[in-house]
Amino acid sequence: RRYRIAVIPGDGIGKEVMPEGVRALEAAAAAFGFTLDLEWHDFACCDYYARHGQMMPDDWKARLDGVDALFFGAVGWPDTVPDHISLWQSLLQFRREYDQYVNLRPVRLMPGVPCPLAGRKPGDIDFWVVRENTEGEYSSVGGHMFPGTDREIVIQETVMTRHGVDRVLRYAFDLASKRERRHLTSATKSNGIAITMPFWDARVEAIAPEYPGVTHDKYHIDILTAQFVMNPQRFDVVVASNLFGDILSDLGPACTGTIGVAPSANINPDGRFPSLFEPVHGSAPDIAGQGIANPVGQVWSAVMMLEHLGEAEAAAAIMGAIEATLVSDNGRTRDLSGSASTEACGKAIASLIG
Amino acid sequence: RRYRIAVIPGDGIGKEVMPEGVRALEAAAAAFGFTLDLEWHDFACCDYYARHGQMMPDDWKARLDGVDALFFGAVGWPDTVPDHISLWQSLLQFRREYDQYVNLRPVRLMPGVPCPLAGRKPGDIDFWVVRENTEGEYSSVGGHMFPGTDREIVIQETVMTRHGVDRVLRYAFDLASKRERRHLTSATKSNGIAITMPFWDARVEAIAPEYPGVTHDKYHIDILTAQFVMNPQRFDVVVASNLFGDILSDLGPACTGTIGVAPSANINPDGRFPSLFEPVHGSAPDIAGQGIANPVGQVWSAVMMLEHLGEAEAAAAIMGAIEATLVSDNGRTRDLSGSASTEACGKAIASLIG
Ligand SMILES: CC(C)[C@H](C(=O)O)[C@@H](O)C(=O)O
Ligand SMILES: CC(C)[C@H](C(=O)O)[C@@H](O)C(=O)O
Repeated sequence: RRYRIAVIPGDGIGKEVMPEGVRALEAAAAAFGFTLDLEWHDFACCDYYARHGQMMPDDWKARLDGVDALFFGAVGWPDTVPDHISLWQSLLQFRREYDQYVNLRPVRLMPGVPCPLAGRKPGDIDFWVVRENTEGEYSSVGGHMFPGTDREIVIQETVMTRHGVDRVLRYAFDLASKRERRHLTSATKSNGIAITMPFWDARVEAIAPEYPGVTHDKYHIDILTAQFVMNPQRFDVVVASNLFGDILSDLGPACTGTIGVAPSANINPDGRFPSLFEPVHGSAPDIAGQGIANPVGQVWSAVMMLEHLGEAEAAAAIMGAIEATLVSDNGRTRDLSGSASTEACGKAIASLIG
Repeated sequence: RRYRIAVIPGDGIGKEVMPEGVRALEAAAAAFGFTLDLEWHDFACCDYYARHGQMMPDDWKARLDGVDALFFGAVGWPDTVPDHISLWQSLLQFRREYDQYVNLRPVRLMPGVPCPLAGRKPGDIDFWVVRENTEGEYSSVGGHMFPGTDREIVIQETVMTRHGVDRVLRYAFDLASKRERRHLTSATKSNGIAITMPFWDARVEAIAPEYPGVTHDKYHIDILTAQFVMNPQRFDVVVASNLFGDILSDLGPACTGTIGVAPSANINPDGRFPSLFEPVHGSAPDIAGQGIANPVGQVWSAVMMLEHLGEAEAAAAIMGAIEATLVSDNGRTRDLSGSASTEACGKAIASLIG
């Protein structure tokens, strides 16, 4: 078993946590007998933009041709490049051009991670957010009229297709069908966003009969965010449009205290293109360069990548090492009231793999 | 002092909490020497739709001509009328046609209300959400193509105007300038929603110099929802687009345990049209008809209405009565682990006004 992995650290703390993600991967490869060909890339970051006036080389697709997965850090350095440029020319481009139409993120109360909600303990909260990752509110269609005048108007279109909505709904129903509680919650806002969201609701109803073993309900996004805080134990799989999924998959980890720890998978389920694995956190300019960033989000992303590649045993071993480190005395970083550096945390995890 | 108030109970628990809102208003009028002409209306509810095939009479504007304010309950009864029809033909129509371009909602940790966040106490959390209330993501422009086929597409346009954005930003900066901390937080998503939201950010920067005493920052909506849970003490005034404000003004009250208690004001600041005051909660079909709904959101909305009408003393008296009732033994409804009925809670509040 041999895997070609594109390693793209990106900006800020991305560059600091990536070596720890790789350390865990290499430990797992040694322990479980597979080979990793790691190809490091210096593009998709704002340094590259500073040198070349764009985030990626024109031939980025050729350079990544044939890789089995992308292992991604974090991108964005607003002092150098406006976020909407850095992101649309990197992460958002991968998601679209590689048709990674599922963004999958766990919301799990972990041992050793203090929870901002009162009276919750590990096991109480354990669900997935399935986010549509290619269309919807993240649209490149629209425009700007009368710029610089009092009549200035901007318009941006949300575009949803039956093709795009149905496939992510099926992925979410399918995931729910394999869980114990078999329940799917759909995020909507059909009372206010009265063209696209009633369509989303109708597609949920159209697809639900294909999964008779799965129960489902829906919440408007406003009250759904409230429910994440008030009744997070209620959820099993939550499916959402691109924007709503973006919000819910930051809010969910925040509710479990794991925003610095949570991973995500940008998946092309049909396997025509490589999938991309990255922590939920961003490049964090405020703490970059100090060696104090928590690398667990990056390492947990390695777990999701190995699961995707079929290395379930190795994935489970890393996950066990993460959990043990989170409750240990010396592996926790500052954000979890420990004192370990990024590297010390990464080494603690790697030492437990095997 | 004499005020003409349109009273519109709406659906579900709206009909149950409205009498308690009115009870408080009448007690305040008696105690502080002003007169209320209350005009009850049976439209803007789904019963009306069932009888007439529309939510409001064609001449609703004539019927409401000259009122000083609208006192509104809650609307929506999805078993009878789809939400997007009931809302667009009532509440959302008032907001637009009466140009109520500010939606103002307090987020305040109240005594007697259990907080779902760990370790917070009354006083720790106290901020306002200022929501743009007429344009943005709540747009009626868009369409549906190839319906019923595999090629089906829906498109909905977010429309932001300089006129619409600037005026709500000015309202928010102005509100911040009158608070102790003088800080404004702008909700954005300019990294992903790359046409409209960078415009929003640019308008914030364009208007900020008019308010040199106010500091400001911005957060992307995903991490902002996370910050509401992790660091709610950080906020003073939060300004947001229509959709983001909708989300934040449900999430904020959820974080303070007050989702059943929070009020809102839909304000036409230039006074050309009447403003509308309503609880944050909806019609709650699940508990409607049992007499157990919490009327505090409706009563607190009366407080906001009286402040708007210039009856500050009466408003403060009702607010004091609410606070006393929330910590009392016998005024709390079931959602606050009390056993009072809607009416008992309303009477407890009214008895303390004066
Ligand atoms: C009922 C719904 C259309 C409304 C909105 O989204 O504005 C409500 O959630 C609110 O916040 O007043
Ligand atoms: C950086 C940003 C464009 C991105 C998104 O909105 O998708 C991020 O928030 C995420 O969730 O991956």
